[in-house]
Amino acid sequence: MAEDVMTQPETEAEREDYTLSQRDVSAILYAVEIDDRAKLIELMEPLHAADIADLLEQINAFDRARLIRLYDREFDGDILSELDESIRDEVIALLSPAVLQEAVRELDSDDVVDILEDLQDAQQETILDALEDTDRLAVEQALSYPEYSAGRLMQREVVMAPEHWTVGEAIDHLRATPENDLPDQFYHIIMVDPRLHPVGNVTLGKLMRSKRETPLKALLEDTFEVFPVTRDEGDVAYAFNQYHLISAPVVDEEGRLIGVITIDDAMAVLDEEHDEDILRLAGVDSESALSDSIRATTRRRLPWLAVNLVTAIAASLVIAQFEVALSQIVALAVLMPIVASMGGNAGTQSLTVAVRSLATKDLTGSNVWRVIRREVLVGLINGVIFAVVMGIVGLVWFGSPALGYVIASAMVVNMVVAGLAGTGIPIVLERIGIDPALASGAFVTTVTDIVGFFAFLGLAALVLL
Amino acid sequence: MAEDVMTQPETEAEREDYTLSQRDVSAILYAVEIDDRAKLIELMEPLHAADIADLLEQINAFDRARLIRLYDREFDGDILSELDESIRDEVIALLSPAVLQEAVRELDSDDVVDILEDLQDAQQETILDALEDTDRLAVEQALSYPEYSAGRLMQREVVMAPEHWTVGEAIDHLRATPENDLPDQFYHIIMVDPRLHPVGNVTLGKLMRSKRETPLKALLEDTFEVFPVTRDEGDVAYAFNQYHLISAPVVDEEGRLIGVITIDDAMAVLDEEHDEDILRLAGVDSESALSDSIRATTRRRLPWLAVNLVTAIAASLVIAQFEVALSQIVALAVLMPIVASMGGNAGTQSLTVAVRSLATKDLTGSNVWRVIRREVLVGLINGVIFAVVMGIVGLVWFGSPALGYVIASAMVVNMVVAGLAGTGIPIVLERIGIDPALASGAFVTTVTDIVGFFAFLGLAALVLL
Repeated sequence: MAEDVMTQPETEAEREDYTLSQRDVSAILYAVEIDDRAKLIELMEPLHAADIADLLEQINAFDRARLIRLYDREFDGDILSELDESIRDEVIALLSPAVLQEAVRELDSDDVVDILEDLQDAQQETILDALEDTDRLAVEQALSYPEYSAGRLMQREVVMAPEHWTVGEAIDHLRATPENDLPDQFYHIIMVDPRLHPVGNVTLGKLMRSKRETPLKALLEDTFEVFPVTRDEGDVAYAFNQYHLISAPVVDEEGRLIGVITIDDAMAVLDEEHDEDILRLAGVDSESALSDSIRATTRRRLPWLAVNLVTAIAASLVIAQFEVALSQIVALAVLMPIVASMGGNAGTQSLTVAVRSLATKDLTGSNVWRVIRREVLVGLINGVIFAVVMGIVGLVWFGSPALGYVIASAMVVNMVVAGLAGTGIPIVLERIGIDPALASGAFVTTVTDIVGFFAFLGLAALVLL
Repeated sequence: MAEDVMTQPETEAEREDYTLSQRDVSAILYAVEIDDRAKLIELMEPLHAADIADLLEQINAFDRARLIRLYDREFDGDILSELDESIRDEVIALLSPAVLQEAVRELDSDDVVDILEDLQDAQQETILDALEDTDRLAVEQALSYPEYSAGRLMQREVVMAPEHWTVGEAIDHLRATPENDLPDQFYHIIMVDPRLHPVGNVTLGKLMRSKRETPLKALLEDTFEVFPVTRDEGDVAYAFNQYHLISAPVVDEEGRLIGVITIDDAMAVLDEEHDEDILRLAGVDSESALSDSIRATTRRRLPWLAVNLVTAIAASLVIAQFEVALSQIVALAVLMPIVASMGGNAGTQSLTVAVRSLATKDLTGSNVWRVIRREVLVGLINGVIFAVVMGIVGLVWFGSPALGYVIASAMVVNMVVAGLAGTGIPIVLERIGIDPALASGAFVTTVTDIVGFFAFLGLAALVLL
């Protein structure tokens, strides 16, 4: 990468948006097509592992298999780490045992764990067998921690120093430690007490600029967070973002230092959690990937559509109660979707704000009632505004003041309910331990559909018949 | 923070989820209530600036004003940095000039820029006047770069070394540089050529572990990205996440090093962009905050609801074309929302996947046709499945095989259209330079509503009348 930037500045300028150009992809696929291994390696050489992984995700399964076979032993362990889990097992199955072994051995233990956790047992064994005994032990240990925990996220290689050390002792220790026992990248030295409990961080910058005789204690950073090994990775990512952490120690049940998490891993978790939230809010399985097959995609989309069908039928049952009114005044059928639709949209607005605020821990016991009150009042005000508009539309379109009054009233009712349900439902779901991103949407639109149809048709039956 | 963790471990355990407990908030508000400044300072002392900012966002405006007045000169510049922009101007107006000056002077230039960019001119002047001349110049320079650009995100303090230096020379230089000219935190030394063009990064860890006579050139990291000063901050955040960067140099139009961006700032940008996407998809103004007033919230929600009203009326106009059919067969009015609702949900699923894939650059020229084909086929398969279900429901409920056939056919048509519109509309919007997260939802549900009503009522009019 570095070399590429220096020697071919024009390439850097072209790929301004950090994606491979279609021309690059075509050139690579052409090299695969004509079986030109030397050309393929030349084209792939300047690419970052993350870009190669993206390329593999974007081409079809047939091209993917041919490319991987031709690329063969150039295949790097980092590419496996970067690959989306939806095609990782497919890619691993394509690698020859020797290439796989070589690829896996290059990786840090946390990356191997990341790859292993999504694989079938048989593939897990293949990879574990490829590791050296000490690495295998480390990986199996990590897999014993709960999924999505700090233990799975951390790397085991840590740089620590006892409380009584000076800057000079720490630097000498660092120099004497063999390369293999150090993390690939590290930014802090973790100070520990005699029981191995972490008590503070010293940045390498401060260490380097201080006199050799300075006690480490004098250089501790102000902000310092310690994560228990079982802490949820989402909470870890939140804390990194909230407190601007760069790295943080992980401790076992006795509070002893057993690993360290760095911000790049926390950033990746934050990114994934956001993606999951956004997909869940739209009723898409959060494991979905763009490289999923048609069959997998159909199966992942189906459950939410089935839930929606049930709620839509429930709304239809409400409509069916007013068949008499509908058969006498056809304008009701024409106008009724408007009330439901406005309620659904207002409800989705409130719900999205509530779900996000819960995720970012901005909606708490201290402001929950104020927020609910605000959403209901906003629903009321917007309801009145659109009630006036729709009242006039109803009057002008169908020439009936009573119809205008009915639709206006139903609009106000439904938008107030939308504000209440949109905020209340996610809060209640969160309290009882259900992910509000996953389930709120179905509940809120069911409420606004049913209330919308019931208020509009019910009022119409009362007033107009 | 560090001290707190050590001396009061039970507090750490209690605030497991990194939010202030309601008890802590009550204690703080009580101290404000009884005007007990010493107690307030004691309670606030262990809190991180980010937590104090969250607290200020969560309490109401009245308590906020009293707290800030009582806290007075304890108010720290970092709190201003962490505050949501929605209440930042309100808080700044509450600070006395002396406190504000003190608070702002503590901050790094990039943090001052971050605060200034959202303020009114008068408040900007107040803060600029509080700065020393050199800092003021630096801040005004940064403000001359476009909003949301790398130039606004970077810090100007950089640690650089010429290409020909050895490890020893770099370390001596670092030791000789006055504290003030160094960034608060830094993790790399940037190697530059004689024209000040950045050519590579050396981590402090490697620097510290290498022999004094080692040339810096031998220690360069593999992955190295350089950002032009005008590069969009979203692209910067994407590149940090994609390539696992920790810090990266920023260059001016001539390619000369002028600043550095660190991963914690990139992570904050990634977080904000995600939030904006999620809110935009739900039709909520992306600047919305939980601390917004009722008036501000009403105003922010209204435009999207107005757009929705127009599209809902358009759908009603379609329904109105079939008044004859509706007045003769009331079952049509009962069943028609089901077809529209299923299409809307399927469309939202496709659209959300497409918007996310565009944002993460996974949907590119190489796979766009494959993805569109997949979404249409998934729509077709799910459409057929739910068509069978609804055909049976229609038959059983209303005892009419023809009605069952009509609703089943309309369902298939609408779900295929949903897959096509849900994927195609965001792609087209992206191509013509409109944020697909912002506008796709309105278009897609309009399409599925209109097609749903038209297909169902049109077929019914043809077959049943």
